[in-house]
Amino acid sequence: MNFTSIEEYENYLNRSARLPEGITASSERISFYPEELAVAGETGKPYAMNLTLLALDEPTECFSALFTRNAFPGHPVVIGRELVKEKKLKGLIINNRIANVECPEGYEKSQAVRKKMEELLPGEGVVFPFSTGIIGWELPRDEMIKALPALAASRKGGSALPAARSIMTTDSFPKAFTVKAGEGVITGICKGAGMIEPNLATMLVFVMTDVTLSREELKLSWDEACRLSFNRISVDSDQSTSDTAMIFSTNRRNAAKEEFSAALKELTMVMAQNVVRNGEGTGHVIEVIVEEAMTEEEGASAGKALVNSPLTKSAVFGNDPNVGRLIQALGDWAGNGDIELDRSRVSLVMGGEYLYKDGAFLLDSDKEARLHRYLKERALPLPSPGFPAHENNVSITVRLGRGSAESRVWGSDLSCDYVTINAEYRS
Amino acid sequence: MNFTSIEEYENYLNRSARLPEGITASSERISFYPEELAVAGETGKPYAMNLTLLALDEPTECFSALFTRNAFPGHPVVIGRELVKEKKLKGLIINNRIANVECPEGYEKSQAVRKKMEELLPGEGVVFPFSTGIIGWELPRDEMIKALPALAASRKGGSALPAARSIMTTDSFPKAFTVKAGEGVITGICKGAGMIEPNLATMLVFVMTDVTLSREELKLSWDEACRLSFNRISVDSDQSTSDTAMIFSTNRRNAAKEEFSAALKELTMVMAQNVVRNGEGTGHVIEVIVEEAMTEEEGASAGKALVNSPLTKSAVFGNDPNVGRLIQALGDWAGNGDIELDRSRVSLVMGGEYLYKDGAFLLDSDKEARLHRYLKERALPLPSPGFPAHENNVSITVRLGRGSAESRVWGSDLSCDYVTINAEYRS
Repeated sequence: MNFTSIEEYENYLNRSARLPEGITASSERISFYPEELAVAGETGKPYAMNLTLLALDEPTECFSALFTRNAFPGHPVVIGRELVKEKKLKGLIINNRIANVECPEGYEKSQAVRKKMEELLPGEGVVFPFSTGIIGWELPRDEMIKALPALAASRKGGSALPAARSIMTTDSFPKAFTVKAGEGVITGICKGAGMIEPNLATMLVFVMTDVTLSREELKLSWDEACRLSFNRISVDSDQSTSDTAMIFSTNRRNAAKEEFSAALKELTMVMAQNVVRNGEGTGHVIEVIVEEAMTEEEGASAGKALVNSPLTKSAVFGNDPNVGRLIQALGDWAGNGDIELDRSRVSLVMGGEYLYKDGAFLLDSDKEARLHRYLKERALPLPSPGFPAHENNVSITVRLGRGSAESRVWGSDLSCDYVTINAEYRS
Repeated sequence: MNFTSIEEYENYLNRSARLPEGITASSERISFYPEELAVAGETGKPYAMNLTLLALDEPTECFSALFTRNAFPGHPVVIGRELVKEKKLKGLIINNRIANVECPEGYEKSQAVRKKMEELLPGEGVVFPFSTGIIGWELPRDEMIKALPALAASRKGGSALPAARSIMTTDSFPKAFTVKAGEGVITGICKGAGMIEPNLATMLVFVMTDVTLSREELKLSWDEACRLSFNRISVDSDQSTSDTAMIFSTNRRNAAKEEFSAALKELTMVMAQNVVRNGEGTGHVIEVIVEEAMTEEEGASAGKALVNSPLTKSAVFGNDPNVGRLIQALGDWAGNGDIELDRSRVSLVMGGEYLYKDGAFLLDSDKEARLHRYLKERALPLPSPGFPAHENNVSITVRLGRGSAESRVWGSDLSCDYVTINAEYRS
C-alpha cells in the first residue's frame, strides 16, 4: 500500500481494522507531574499520559502472552508472568509515557492500578497491566486510578484505531490490522520499537480474535506466530525490558485451526514489518529470506547476522548494493558459529539479481546502477512523515546450500537519523 | 598522551617506535589500473598501492600468527594458514589498496608475489603475504613483482614509523609502539578497522621482538595477548575477511618469560585501543571493565554486549550517561544468555560515579551534568584530525556479582560520521 498523507492512512485503518465482536476499547488522557522531578525541586508543565483499556464483554479463559527475556524486566512484565496462570481474563490496562522499570514502588503501583480496573469491569477475571515509556520513573498511581471510572464507562466496539493511536509513544504512526480467519477475524494493534524518550521504548503487541479455540490451541498458535514474526525482526538488536505480546479470544466464531494459524502468522508478520518500518530513523526495511538452511532457526540466525551488521545496514542506507559487506557478515556469522559453508553452493540475490554465485561476485557497473535504483526506490522518507509512505522492502535472498529450511527476517538500515535521535542529550 | 598536530604525533612515534635489531623494513609505492575497471571499459587515473616489506637479517624459527574466523577468508589468509606450519620465516610482504578476497586468480597471484619476494631475500625461509583494501579486485601481480627488487634493496632498520604509515588504508594515523621486555624490546605496528574503501578494511597486526623464546613459548604468549586485546575490541561487531595478527622474534636478547608475556599484553592492549580510536567515525573510545564475572570470557561477553549495543553507543556519542540503556543492554545479554543476575549485587559505574547499585538507579541532575561533562571531555574530534588528539577512554565498570574474574573490552561509540562514511554510494 502507498499513502500520501496521515489522514489517508488513518482513514484506511479506521475502515479496515475493527475490534472483534465482544471486545471494547477506550482511552483517557491524564496529566501529572513526575515525582522524580518534583523531588529534585524542578517545576514545569505537567506531563501527559494516555490510558488505554481493552475489555471483554464476557471474561475469557482463552488468552496467552509472551514476555521479554531481558533480565531486568519491567514490573508489569513480572505481574503479567503471574497473571498468565490465572483462569480468566477480562481486560488490559495500558499506559504510555512511563515504562515502570526499576522503580522502588513499581510493582505495588502497577498492582493497585490493575486491581482498581478489575473492580470497575463486570464479571470474574483479571486485568493485565502494561506500561511503556521512561525507565526509572514511578507511575502516577493516584492520577491513573482517578481516570479509571471514565475509562470503564466510555469503552466501545468498532474501530481499533483509537486504541492503536493511544498506546503510541514515539511511534510516528498507529499500527492496526485485521485479517479474516474462517467465520471470524483477528485484529492486532501494536506500538513499536522507537528507541527514545529518553531511554528506550518497548514493543507492545495486542491481538484480539473471536475465533473459538482452547487456551492450549491459542498458545501453540501464538508462540509459533510470534517466533516467526516479532522474534524475526531487529531494529537495532536491542531487546527492551518491557516487550510483551498478548493475544486473547472471545470464542464466538468458527475457523479451522490451520486457517486460524495461517491467518495469525500473516497478521503478525505484517505487524512485525510495520514495527520495523516505524523504527526510529528507519530509512529502508530489509527483508532477508534465507533458503537452504539446515533449520528455520539456523536460517533466522544467518538473516539476523545480516540485518544486524552495521556495515551492511549503513550500505543499504546509502543505497549501495555492497556484496562485499554481505559476504563479510555471512562469513563472520558462519565462521564464529562453526557453520560449515560450501562457497560454491552459497548464493546471494538482491532485488532479483545475483550478487554472488558459484564462489564469485557477480557485479558489473550496469547491475550496480540498477540495484542502486532498486534501493533508492525502496527508501522511506526521513524523518518519517508520520505515515508509512509505502510498504516495499529491500529483498535479499541468501541460499546457504546446507538444507531445505527457509526463514524470513526483517530489519532496518542504519541512518544518521537513528544516531541523531538516539544521541540527543536529555536536557 | 595528548597531541596537537600530526607532526608532533609522528615525531613521537619516530623516536619511540623502533624496529628490533636484526629486522629491517622498506616501502615502495606503485601505480596500476584495476583489471576490473579496464574490462568494464572504464578509464581514468591509475590507482596507487603501497608495498611494505618486513625482513629478518637471519631467518627465524620463532613466529606465530592468528587469522580471522570469517568463513570467507581472503587468499593471503588461506596461504598464511599453510605457511605458519613452515620451519623458517624470513619476511613479510604487505600490500594495501586491494584485499584479495573472492578473486578467481587471487590465490595464485598472492603466491607468485610472495615467492618472488622469497627469491630476493637471503637465507632459507618463507615470506608471508598480506593484503588489505578492496574486496573482489585482482592483485596487480606484474606491477607488484616489478617493484620487489627495489623493496629488497632499500630495506633498513631504525624507526618503525615508515612501515606503519605504509600499511595504512583508511586509517587516519599510523600506529607504532615499542615496549621493553627484559634486555629486549617488542615493537608493534598495525592498521585498523576503518571500514570503507569501498567494502571493508582489515585489521593487520605485526609484532616484532628480539627476545629469545621457543616457537611454542611465543605462540602461547601471542594467543593469550591477542585474546585479551584484539579479541576484546569491537568497532562495529563486524569481523573482516582478512584480519590477521602475526608475531616473530630474532631471538637475540634475554627476558624472563613472565616479563615478556606481561610486556606483550601491555603492548597489544595499547595497539588494540588505538585501532578502536582510529575506527571510522569513532567519537569516543569506551572501555568496559567487567568485574565479578564467573570467568574472563563471561565478563568479556557482557562487555561486548555493552559496546555493541547501538543504543548505548549512540548515547555515548551524544555524551548522555544513559543508565537505562546500559541496564537494558546488560539485561538483554543476561536474559538471552541464560546468565542469572542477582540485581541487588549488580552495579554500574561510569567515570567513577555509581549509576546503578543495590537494585536501583542512582542518577540525579547534578550527577548527570557531571557525567555529561565527563563524556564531553573524552570526545574525539570528528572527522579525525589525522592524529589521536588524546588517549582518554570513557570508563564504564560493571560488577556482575557472580564471581571474581575481571575482563576488559574496548569499543567505539556510534556517530553520524560512522554512518555517513559507510553509507556513501561508490560512484
